[in-house]
Amino acid sequence: MTDTYAIHPATKIVRGPKRATYDRATIHGIIDDAMICHVATVLDGQAVMIPTAHWRVGEAVYIHGASKNRVLAAIANGAAACLCFTHLDGLVMARSAFHHSANYRSVILYGKAHILDDPADKMAHSQYFIDKIAPGRWDKIRQPNAQELKATLFLGFDLKEVSAKIRSGDPVDDDADYGWPVWTGVLPCRMVWDDPVNDSRIEPGF
Amino acid sequence: MTDTYAIHPATKIVRGPKRATYDRATIHGIIDDAMICHVATVLDGQAVMIPTAHWRVGEAVYIHGASKNRVLAAIANGAAACLCFTHLDGLVMARSAFHHSANYRSVILYGKAHILDDPADKMAHSQYFIDKIAPGRWDKIRQPNAQELKATLFLGFDLKEVSAKIRSGDPVDDDADYGWPVWTGVLPCRMVWDDPVNDSRIEPGF
Repeated sequence: MTDTYAIHPATKIVRGPKRATYDRATIHGIIDDAMICHVATVLDGQAVMIPTAHWRVGEAVYIHGASKNRVLAAIANGAAACLCFTHLDGLVMARSAFHHSANYRSVILYGKAHILDDPADKMAHSQYFIDKIAPGRWDKIRQPNAQELKATLFLGFDLKEVSAKIRSGDPVDDDADYGWPVWTGVLPCRMVWDDPVNDSRIEPGF
Repeated sequence: MTDTYAIHPATKIVRGPKRATYDRATIHGIIDDAMICHVATVLDGQAVMIPTAHWRVGEAVYIHGASKNRVLAAIANGAAACLCFTHLDGLVMARSAFHHSANYRSVILYGKAHILDDPADKMAHSQYFIDKIAPGRWDKIRQPNAQELKATLFLGFDLKEVSAKIRSGDPVDDDADYGWPVWTGVLPCRMVWDDPVNDSRIEPGF
């Protein structure tokens, strides 16, 4: 397997090509570090979108949800999708309004989905997902039954038409603006996890 | 002005209607609390998407970017858009795999854009945007010149076809699963701002 993804017509970065990367490990990292992605498709000629959780296994990304969700159903019926995984890392404060920017890492993935039909596959992917959000939890919870698996649509997207854009570091101003009397730099941001909050109906002893 | 947005065919929440809200102040808050949104449209029959910064003025949301950005250009040329503003607030750890969930606040907005053509409007919106990310900064920076305003596309979307979904609080398990011996609750997450990082070329005295 090569270290980089091939560039496809849909994934050729035209705007800001210096920020583009097709590096496989970088793209895997951006996807894995994100808890949710945004999934768009076309439904009755109109762009529609949902935010949803995802997980990656090897060279595919998976999402799941109610079979009756209209966005998921459209993709399951063959509509091409566009998935976006985004981390905002900071706001970039430049000398000129024009060069204010954001530091970010994002991945765009295009493709049609394959549907997981086999209940054993669905069960395995339920475990992948639970173990992504809480390693080791799978063995402690009540695992899915046949009816729950049936009601849940699992969709996989191969990592083929995929690209990333990354901006990091200092503002970049026009040469003529250096010397402008203003603070410049980055306002960094990140997601943090706070202490767990117990269920108000938590089981005795937990 | 009413306290709630009217429900349109595109914004009628079918899945999880108990999580839906059309409350105007709630929707404004979700939009304003987000630094970025995801913007999807249809280009050559394919769903395409970008993450981008936004700001709200009254009953419209605005985005901007390079005139040559193909997603923005498609919307400027009349393609309908779908915007999504999402906050992940936590992971909901239930007794059953099936009832694991997320706490979140999200807004979906459908519509075509109006283009800001007047340089004075563009200038005013540049200020709105800078003042959203750093109140008071506008007066200290080098403001946009005519060429920069011309190179930047400003798009506005009226808040009409808009809806929100919110989930918060405890897991909700099937009655039969209460008693299952596992910790349950919420793993809360949020975005935080760290200390500003000075530009390596910061101006003397700042």
